[in-house]
Amino acid sequence: FDKDLYEGNEVAGVVTGLAWTQVGGDILFIEASLSPGKGKLSLTGNLGDVMKESAAIAMAYLKAHSRKFNIDNRLFDLWDVHVHVPAGATPKDGPSAGITMLTALTSAFTQRRVKTHLAMTGEITLRGKVLPVGGIKEKILAAKRANIKEIILSKSNRKDILEIKEDYIKDLVFHYVNEMKEVIDLALTNEKVKDPIDLTLMEKVTLP
Amino acid sequence: FDKDLYEGNEVAGVVTGLAWTQVGGDILFIEASLSPGKGKLSLTGNLGDVMKESAAIAMAYLKAHSRKFNIDNRLFDLWDVHVHVPAGATPKDGPSAGITMLTALTSAFTQRRVKTHLAMTGEITLRGKVLPVGGIKEKILAAKRANIKEIILSKSNRKDILEIKEDYIKDLVFHYVNEMKEVIDLALTNEKVKDPIDLTLMEKVTLP
Amino acid sequence: FDKDLYEGNEVAGVVTGLAWTQVGGDILFIEASLSPGKGKLSLTGNLGDVMKESAAIAMAYLKAHSRKFNIDNRLFDLWDVHVHVPAGATPKDGPSAGITMLTALTSAFTQRRVKTHLAMTGEITLRGKVLPVGGIKEKILAAKRANIKEIILSKSNRKDILEIKEDYIKDLVFHYVNEMKEVIDLALTNEKVKDPIDLTLMEKVTLP
Amino acid sequence: FDKDLYEGNEVAGVVTGLAWTQVGGDILFIEASLSPGKGKLSLTGNLGDVMKESAAIAMAYLKAHSRKFNIDNRLFDLWDVHVHVPAGATPKDGPSAGITMLTALTSAFTQRRVKTHLAMTGEITLRGKVLPVGGIKEKILAAKRANIKEIILSKSNRKDILEIKEDYIKDLVFHYVNEMKEVIDLALTNEKVKDPIDLTLMEKVTLP
Amino acid sequence: FDKDLYEGNEVAGVVTGLAWTQVGGDILFIEASLSPGKGKLSLTGNLGDVMKESAAIAMAYLKAHSRKFNIDNRLFDLWDVHVHVPAGATPKDGPSAGITMLTALTSAFTQRRVKTHLAMTGEITLRGKVLPVGGIKEKILAAKRANIKEIILSKSNRKDILEIKEDYIKDLVFHYVNEMKEVIDLALTNEKVKDPIDLTLMEKVTLP
Amino acid sequence: FDKDLYEGNEVAGVVTGLAWTQVGGDILFIEASLSPGKGKLSLTGNLGDVMKESAAIAMAYLKAHSRKFNIDNRLFDLWDVHVHVPAGATPKDGPSAGITMLTALTSAFTQRRVKTHLAMTGEITLRGKVLPVGGIKEKILAAKRANIKEIILSKSNRKDILEIKEDYIKDLVFHYVNEMKEVIDLALTNEKVKDPIDLTLMEKVTLP
Ligand SMILES: [Ca+2]
Ligand SMILES: [Ca+2]
Ligand SMILES: [Ca+2]
Ligand SMILES: [Ca+2]
Ligand SMILES: [Ca+2]
Ligand SMILES: [Ca+2]
Ligand SMILES: [Ca+2]
Ligand SMILES: [Ca+2]
Ligand SMILES: [Ca+2]
Ligand SMILES: [Ca+2]
Ligand SMILES: [Ca+2]
Ligand SMILES: [Ca+2]
Repeated sequence: FDKDLYEGNEVAGVVTGLAWTQVGGDILFIEASLSPGKGKLSLTGNLGDVMKESAAIAMAYLKAHSRKFNIDNRLFDLWDVHVHVPAGATPKDGPSAGITMLTALTSAFTQRRVKTHLAMTGEITLRGKVLPVGGIKEKILAAKRANIKEIILSKSNRKDILEIKEDYIKDLVFHYVNEMKEVIDLALTNEKVKDPIDLTLMEKVTLP
Repeated sequence: FDKDLYEGNEVAGVVTGLAWTQVGGDILFIEASLSPGKGKLSLTGNLGDVMKESAAIAMAYLKAHSRKFNIDNRLFDLWDVHVHVPAGATPKDGPSAGITMLTALTSAFTQRRVKTHLAMTGEITLRGKVLPVGGIKEKILAAKRANIKEIILSKSNRKDILEIKEDYIKDLVFHYVNEMKEVIDLALTNEKVKDPIDLTLMEKVTLP
Repeated sequence: FDKDLYEGNEVAGVVTGLAWTQVGGDILFIEASLSPGKGKLSLTGNLGDVMKESAAIAMAYLKAHSRKFNIDNRLFDLWDVHVHVPAGATPKDGPSAGITMLTALTSAFTQRRVKTHLAMTGEITLRGKVLPVGGIKEKILAAKRANIKEIILSKSNRKDILEIKEDYIKDLVFHYVNEMKEVIDLALTNEKVKDPIDLTLMEKVTLP
Repeated sequence: FDKDLYEGNEVAGVVTGLAWTQVGGDILFIEASLSPGKGKLSLTGNLGDVMKESAAIAMAYLKAHSRKFNIDNRLFDLWDVHVHVPAGATPKDGPSAGITMLTALTSAFTQRRVKTHLAMTGEITLRGKVLPVGGIKEKILAAKRANIKEIILSKSNRKDILEIKEDYIKDLVFHYVNEMKEVIDLALTNEKVKDPIDLTLMEKVTLP
Repeated sequence: FDKDLYEGNEVAGVVTGLAWTQVGGDILFIEASLSPGKGKLSLTGNLGDVMKESAAIAMAYLKAHSRKFNIDNRLFDLWDVHVHVPAGATPKDGPSAGITMLTALTSAFTQRRVKTHLAMTGEITLRGKVLPVGGIKEKILAAKRANIKEIILSKSNRKDILEIKEDYIKDLVFHYVNEMKEVIDLALTNEKVKDPIDLTLMEKVTLP
Repeated sequence: FDKDLYEGNEVAGVVTGLAWTQVGGDILFIEASLSPGKGKLSLTGNLGDVMKESAAIAMAYLKAHSRKFNIDNRLFDLWDVHVHVPAGATPKDGPSAGITMLTALTSAFTQRRVKTHLAMTGEITLRGKVLPVGGIKEKILAAKRANIKEIILSKSNRKDILEIKEDYIKDLVFHYVNEMKEVIDLALTNEKVKDPIDLTLMEKVTLP
């Protein structure tokens, strides 16, 4: 039984989520990575259909609202995106990683640094609403164990937090949100990561 | 058991439908969103085959009758469409969201605002007829609970309304229709949404 | 248990067929619709594999014999075709809608009006033969109920008609055919539908 | 139980085969048809995987040996081929239609007329060998009933014919072959069909 | 129960393999054939996934080491390859046809004649190693019956030969190999087949 | 029961991994090979979904961090990559070959020689972390038997090594790593393999 720990924010596109498994809560990492390409989205990590759909919704939302996040829309056709969720042998499913996926994708396409010691859980909709998810108590305890300090949740999950004994959570800061814009504003700093990819638009290379 | 509420009409492409589930009626939201692309249609929300076919029929109908709704046909090749139905973990199926899907798509491709406090349920055919659907009584009660004021139905569903005790529905306005054109005329206002996407035809961007 | 009625011939591409179900005969509508595209064929209506193959055969036959029906072959590359069979929740299968599908496709690609109060049932082969199908008695009774006046059948189904009590069918006109050419000549008038699509060949639009 | 009869040779690409079913032998028709296209091969008729592979082998053999049959290889990129085997509701499988398929395809791509009252059964290999098949006795009786006069078989099936009582087959002519070239020489006349398709190479049409 | 016999080496791309079935050993033929195309690889013969992978490995090996076999790499983009293993009704699987497949492909792409009365069995790896396979005793007896004189095997299968009674195999010549290069050197003569395909690079035909 | 032995490092793209099977540990070979193409990735060797995902992650990581390994990114569009894991009949799955796959791909795209008598096991993540894997004890014993001298493992697997009796492993050198960069630095020498492929960028060949 392997409980993960928070691992820092040096790399663009890596965001900490919260998972609810048969053996309790755990944190998970959403890794989004770009490579020069044609806009293909690849998903790995033994993901179920609902979780794959979350990634598709997050990608569609980001494309439709790119200006809101200062992303040049043409970038989406010039880079391939890969989203992976370790560990590869563990099956994963459910919609609750939706906001984590969008945050990871936004960090990848802006190279903005993710806030430290932050985790999040919540379903995303195509118009950017943040829906509540289950397993909140177990997820919060796992976050504490993993050295998380701040957590982003749907406003509709506030009632689940109020049911947790205050002592357990007094060191945690909770952010309750309605919309994805709030998540991104909370989660991504205005600093770039170390060694950012140069996403300036460049001529598509054709060999001579 | 989570009953949804009507949520406003600020965003283009979001239309309220009525669903009939094992635990009674509920409202649902059809979210249609555009991003620059090549005309690809993507569907998410744990949809069954019949519901996916509804989206395909709606899209084909809209393309074949674009002039009727003042849509420049070339737009369909310049934008990708994503249709999502929250929540992602709930499996959904059946043809009764057909007219809601067409309305959402039409709003997305015209950026016209959807009438407030309106919901609808009905199957669409390829020639634009509106067919009756089941579960009317449960759907209507759910609509009332969710703060819906007006409902669009197939004329063939009028008999189902007449069987409902009048007291329950005296605050609701019913629109009975035969054709999709009537649905769109009832459901979409002539106002644009706030911050509409600019759908003016523009040169397809090729990087220098 | 929902028995359909004949619904008129205002729209191109809509042809009435006869179906044989576990609860007796019924009429069904084959809806074929064109939208500007690249020659893609889409099928909806909860169709089984055999019925999907019927549509593929009909399309291949029409392409191979387009001159016989005065269709410019280049049209097939400039329009997408969608074929739908309502209602979407009812699974349908079998080859007996083959001649109805070809008639609907031919009407769509010529915009010729379908004869009124006409229905048909029969399997199509790739060389245009019309093969007999089952359930004739139940289909004929359903046609009568639905206000059909004329019926097209394979010559090999004549024996099934002769077994029906004459009183039941004295108001119906039967056309027995061997070849698809006869079906089209009987079923499509030389009039165009109201508001026909303009199928004149036009330059494929490229945005400036 | 529906036994088919020989149906003439007016149309290019239609060749009579012999089938062996649970209820005895029968004849079947392989229908191959061309329409302007890009070289796509489509298969219908409720065919199993082995029978679909037969069509793929026949097509590959024809492409690799086109000069042997006076077919300009560029034709394969300019026409789509559809192969159908009626009736559509009956599942069919097995390799024994291989030589019938190649004969039908060759007739389609040359518009040569098929010899009258001829049927055939045999597996094809990629190098053009004709392999023996099963159910010979039942197939021969069915051929007789269907008014077939000549039959093409693999040389290795001669022993199966010798086991049939001579009285039953005295009116039939048998051709035993090793190679597909012999089949084509026996089966296709040097006459064109009535109203042949013009397969002269023409410029691929691009609209102005 | 149908035991095959050696069939000569007139045709390019046909190589004799050894198979091990539930009813004992048998020989099989790998048929590889080229037709003008774009580099597509098609496989038929009722092959299981492992056997299909063998063909993919053989093709990848040949492309990566084309110079070793004097094949102009551009040929792979100008021809389609079809690999068939008769008979079509018999399911086949396993990796032991790997070296036979590579030999057939090499013969097809060089039009070099295969040595007479030669058979082989062995798994291929991507770096060209020849791995041992099972069923050696049954395969060797089948080879003898089929009039095979020489057999190529992995060096690691030598121990299986030593266990066979010497009397049975005194007329057979065994070649034990480590690498695919040795197989090709042993199996392909420097003579071309009769009527070889002209694989000289020619301009890709575009119609005027 | 077939235990493999270390086989040298002459060929680019071949790296030794460690596997854990029902019958104990074993070594395995990851073979990566390039051929001129368009960037297609093919996988063979009877691999399960998790193992296929490992290859996809490794490829995405390599593309995203190509500069770190001195690989010109345009190479990825000019070569097809095939990854095979012998033997073909044995099903394989799990994430533990991840770092071996990345090492094989990096060797293939740089033609750098792999260090001799080296094996490795570990899961890769998209950001290049090396995660621990199971079956360490069995894998180490197999490595010893196979004549391996050095082993690369995740730092988190150090505890599994400490549990092995020291006598068994005194001849082995262990390298514990956190990041893929360390694996590549340890595993690939700065020497090229014998007869390296010329990966200099060349004009994509179009036939005259
Ligand atoms: Ca964990
Ligand atoms: Ca969840
Ligand atoms: Ca709800
Ligand atoms: Ca429904
Ligand atoms: Ca009905
Ligand atoms: Ca039927
Ligand atoms: Ca029959
Ligand atoms: Ca057969
Ligand atoms: Ca045999
Ligand atoms: Ca084998
Ligand atoms: Ca082994
Ligand atoms: Ca593993």
